[in-house]
Amino acid sequence: MAKNVSDKHGFKGVETISSSSSCQSSSSPRSSPYVHEVGVPLKQNLLKEIAAAVKETLFADDPLRHFKDQPSSKKFILGLQAIFPILEWGKHYNLSKFKGDLIAGLTIASLCIPQEPQYGLYSSFVPPLVYAFMGSSRDIAIGPVAVVSLLLGSLLQDEIDSSANPVGYRHLAFTATFFAGLTQFILGFFRLGFLIDFLSHAAIVGFMGGTAVTIALQQLKGLLGIKKFTKDTDIVSVMSSVFSSARHGWNWHTILIGISFLIFLSVTKYIGKKQKKFFWVPAIAPLISVIISTVTVYATRADKHGVEIVKNIRKGINPPSVKEIFFSGQYAGKGFKIGVVSGMIALTEAVAIGRTFASMKDYQLDGNKEMIALGTMNIVGSMTSCYVATGSFSRSAVNYMSGCETAVSNIVMACVVLLTLALITPLFEYTPNAILASIIISAVVGLVDIEAVTLIWKIDKFDFIACMGAFFGVVFSSVEVGLVIAVSISFAKILLQVTRPRTAILGKVPRTATVYRNIQQYPDATKVSGILIVRVDSAIYFSNSNYVKERILRWLADEEEHVKENSQPRFQYLIIEMGPVTDIDTSGIHALEELFRALQKRDIKLVFANPGPVVVDKLHASKFQELIGEGRILLTVADAVRICYSKMELEP
Amino acid sequence: MAKNVSDKHGFKGVETISSSSSCQSSSSPRSSPYVHEVGVPLKQNLLKEIAAAVKETLFADDPLRHFKDQPSSKKFILGLQAIFPILEWGKHYNLSKFKGDLIAGLTIASLCIPQEPQYGLYSSFVPPLVYAFMGSSRDIAIGPVAVVSLLLGSLLQDEIDSSANPVGYRHLAFTATFFAGLTQFILGFFRLGFLIDFLSHAAIVGFMGGTAVTIALQQLKGLLGIKKFTKDTDIVSVMSSVFSSARHGWNWHTILIGISFLIFLSVTKYIGKKQKKFFWVPAIAPLISVIISTVTVYATRADKHGVEIVKNIRKGINPPSVKEIFFSGQYAGKGFKIGVVSGMIALTEAVAIGRTFASMKDYQLDGNKEMIALGTMNIVGSMTSCYVATGSFSRSAVNYMSGCETAVSNIVMACVVLLTLALITPLFEYTPNAILASIIISAVVGLVDIEAVTLIWKIDKFDFIACMGAFFGVVFSSVEVGLVIAVSISFAKILLQVTRPRTAILGKVPRTATVYRNIQQYPDATKVSGILIVRVDSAIYFSNSNYVKERILRWLADEEEHVKENSQPRFQYLIIEMGPVTDIDTSGIHALEELFRALQKRDIKLVFANPGPVVVDKLHASKFQELIGEGRILLTVADAVRICYSKMELEP
Repeated sequence: MAKNVSDKHGFKGVETISSSSSCQSSSSPRSSPYVHEVGVPLKQNLLKEIAAAVKETLFADDPLRHFKDQPSSKKFILGLQAIFPILEWGKHYNLSKFKGDLIAGLTIASLCIPQEPQYGLYSSFVPPLVYAFMGSSRDIAIGPVAVVSLLLGSLLQDEIDSSANPVGYRHLAFTATFFAGLTQFILGFFRLGFLIDFLSHAAIVGFMGGTAVTIALQQLKGLLGIKKFTKDTDIVSVMSSVFSSARHGWNWHTILIGISFLIFLSVTKYIGKKQKKFFWVPAIAPLISVIISTVTVYATRADKHGVEIVKNIRKGINPPSVKEIFFSGQYAGKGFKIGVVSGMIALTEAVAIGRTFASMKDYQLDGNKEMIALGTMNIVGSMTSCYVATGSFSRSAVNYMSGCETAVSNIVMACVVLLTLALITPLFEYTPNAILASIIISAVVGLVDIEAVTLIWKIDKFDFIACMGAFFGVVFSSVEVGLVIAVSISFAKILLQVTRPRTAILGKVPRTATVYRNIQQYPDATKVSGILIVRVDSAIYFSNSNYVKERILRWLADEEEHVKENSQPRFQYLIIEMGPVTDIDTSGIHALEELFRALQKRDIKLVFANPGPVVVDKLHASKFQELIGEGRILLTVADAVRICYSKMELEP
Repeated sequence: MAKNVSDKHGFKGVETISSSSSCQSSSSPRSSPYVHEVGVPLKQNLLKEIAAAVKETLFADDPLRHFKDQPSSKKFILGLQAIFPILEWGKHYNLSKFKGDLIAGLTIASLCIPQEPQYGLYSSFVPPLVYAFMGSSRDIAIGPVAVVSLLLGSLLQDEIDSSANPVGYRHLAFTATFFAGLTQFILGFFRLGFLIDFLSHAAIVGFMGGTAVTIALQQLKGLLGIKKFTKDTDIVSVMSSVFSSARHGWNWHTILIGISFLIFLSVTKYIGKKQKKFFWVPAIAPLISVIISTVTVYATRADKHGVEIVKNIRKGINPPSVKEIFFSGQYAGKGFKIGVVSGMIALTEAVAIGRTFASMKDYQLDGNKEMIALGTMNIVGSMTSCYVATGSFSRSAVNYMSGCETAVSNIVMACVVLLTLALITPLFEYTPNAILASIIISAVVGLVDIEAVTLIWKIDKFDFIACMGAFFGVVFSSVEVGLVIAVSISFAKILLQVTRPRTAILGKVPRTATVYRNIQQYPDATKVSGILIVRVDSAIYFSNSNYVKERILRWLADEEEHVKENSQPRFQYLIIEMGPVTDIDTSGIHALEELFRALQKRDIKLVFANPGPVVVDKLHASKFQELIGEGRILLTVADAVRICYSKMELEP
């Protein structure tokens, strides 16, 4: 009685067979005259299948859709525009947009200047310029970023001592920057951008918080004017270093300057937070602090009283550094390793920031294209004396709030930095180190996001563990350890999900004819007498196939005991709802075969409901479908129950 | 009009609200007067939740269920029986069972004797004895196994050259064996046995095949009587070594003996395969070969003509070796590393074999308990001059086919080996090495399982890649490389599934009222005008949250284009079928929020159908439920469609 419906799409469609039971009242499970058996889809072409899988994995966003059906000259222009998005948005650029960009650019430039002098400024000049031409985010502000700089610094310091061998240190830094850029470029070019998705939101929150604490602690050196300071970054070493130097090492002039400006910066921050229209107050405060403190120190010659100042600062723009990159020798490998790690972290931050602002202004960001832009920018940077640069969250937020329209704000910023480097750098000679410390401390404490942590705790306990692991790993050990902990916990979570998928017993939800759901979620749902209905909530792979088989047998054993106690009829059918089983591999098929044999010994028949196309295909290829017999794969649980019921009547 | 149903299980149950639409004909989507909204389950106790998760992960098989409600004396006995299962099955042991075990034991002992003399025999004596008391498999035969021995040998050789420093080599071997046992014991004790599930069936098939080829190639040394032979195991080195010694290095007497017995063994194997009742012929053939060849060599004094013989073989049972284990010094760490790797591989093989035979005789095997038994056996083994022992597939199969009933067959085998060691070992002095080579070759070629590979190709292409990767990795490089390739590919597959979950557009299956399915699988299914229904087929985690969000938006963009071309009404609702979404984390919630905002801009409303309890809970905890508005989470897609339809009527 089977009627096969074939169609041009290459699937055999739904087979419809009329069941042997007669039409009864609509509340009975035997109401409909139809049950729907699932047919085997026609074999797909293997190459096509692989191509589709590759496309979905690497080109999920279909980046070439605009190139379709275009003449080749148009394709060339589109290609150029794909590499340099400025060619596209530049066409619609106008004065009113420039006004927004100018203000935003000047504001973020004022944030740039008071940072680690020399290399900090160098890295705020070339990379933003390159990014402006190649990047597609309109809001991101490029420059050296605390987290990445700290990570890079600590990794470099492990290899070469910066005070003992400053030239070697610098060479290694450029080498690492080069490879960081190369890593980013390659990831983007081969469209492997999805790899950075493996750093979870929770891990990033914890990692950022821990790094913020570590950076803040490091600044105690400058803030307290301590001369002898530990090279370690963990909280125990730093605090013991701070307190052991309390008697002789602290400089009270330095502390006075540092603390008073820290209070000033905190007050401006508070004002900016309370009154949205004064958002520019905290943004401009660092620059004001630098100017006032520099003038004060110069006027009072406080540097004679032990207040450390920046001192040697070279005038002029970035010198070339191509020759300083190691491409061979013992440090090339080390630079490569450091570059890969810091490049990945920098990427994660930039893409996360880019996505955040893109979703706020509702435009799409191609992560892979962004990576190519960031990579190119760091490769060029490594050749012009820059350290690894990336998108800075705090500066991007200021950029956005100051009304930036396009990446031109980055160009404006770069120009201001250029002028600073070319003309006024020596003026910063008298800037006290303490002021840089207070600016950094006031900036990073905002990275400890208590609110986000609370929300993570509420939503997902496992995420919370990852978050705390990253935080304490960074604070008590090092940035690398925190990173490894965060990634491991996140992976463990995925593996746990894959190894121990959920399973559930289903029952019929009251006042419905065909809805079968988890009886733990819907305690009103009623089990069907003589039939056990189980749902497996995951693809069945080698990592869970044994568990799934044994879990189903345990459900059966538990339920059989329960049935025996209540002297109800024994189970004759086991229905597995396969809806969520998106895929199955050879180990999974083996597990199902073992399950089938175990059931056979107990005289229980196996029925599948609602398997997807891939699973049906594999059940067929493995001849498992033949093994369990005809008519055992059905469209819905309700159909399966109806069929089982009708057969149970015939053979009681 | 909402009616909340609370019950004692702590769930708020299903809220049922009557929809505003009136009752119409039964084929319309608005037929039923009820739609079912999903309520928020009451908050579970956090500790209970964690305890449940731990139980499901580590104690999925509920090992303590028998201990429930028992007096403490009974509990003690049950505990003893849990550690030494022999105490349990020993009670029911009888003569008829012993008959089966005796025959099987003698048969497998005859397989044991003709193997690598001395340490091979030592390892066939103590470990099977220990296992017989602690193991719960009735069919497994314990002893040294080709794959593990080869792996162990190659790892040891990398550290210490066995010919240059045989004492150090032996010490390291016992150290590795000790740590292999410890690893197995610890994995079992802490119930981490599920970790070995990560070696997939496909990877094992490839790995075994590759190892078989490698072992067979190694035996060319003995079979051809070559004296100078490479230490490398890859096919290129071995073959060049074989051919470079073709002119002077091959010994024709040796080849004659080796090849003729290889033919003899192959013929017996063929007979055993063709005629089930002659299964014992191939089983007994190795012993016969050894006896005949030894006598022949002794009679003809072929060893004077360059036929290599075993020569120095010590009489007596295993000497103690506790003092030969390194617990400190440079080799302790190396021994530990080697032990962990070979212990894991040995475990994988033993558990796989145990499970196979357990499912054939339909009894349950506790993987973790098995690991404790195997671990103890190897720890004891390492102290009595044994190398890593495990379950051998070929010998277990012979054991099973010879009619073994319990682990007593292992005891019988151990006794025979004991007698061999104590009395007749010196008789094997004249056994030609070539005969051992032909026995090993004839045994391992069976491990190349072409049939299994064909099936893997048919079922799962990714599995096939893992299988081939393992095979060629082992053959062309080394056992370790093959292992790393297999594990990496298997993991990549899991990660790919987690990173790129399937999504599908659903349509209503014809001749059903409420069944919505993937329109690619069921091309007859019809889309609902004005409503896009999408199903996400995986938990939404950090690793896929961005992809899921962007994929749904792309489905929407594609469908909107299609709708526009056909001038159909625009989409007003997006329904996401959440049935397969078993879990969601903070990154997932963020992605849904971004999706919601993107839809808001397009004036499309978001509705969820059929989320599981965990997801409902988290949507609530994150206040996402409040964000999307009331009545947007429904029991089924059909309910959701009905609600959307009725609202679309009110606000056209």
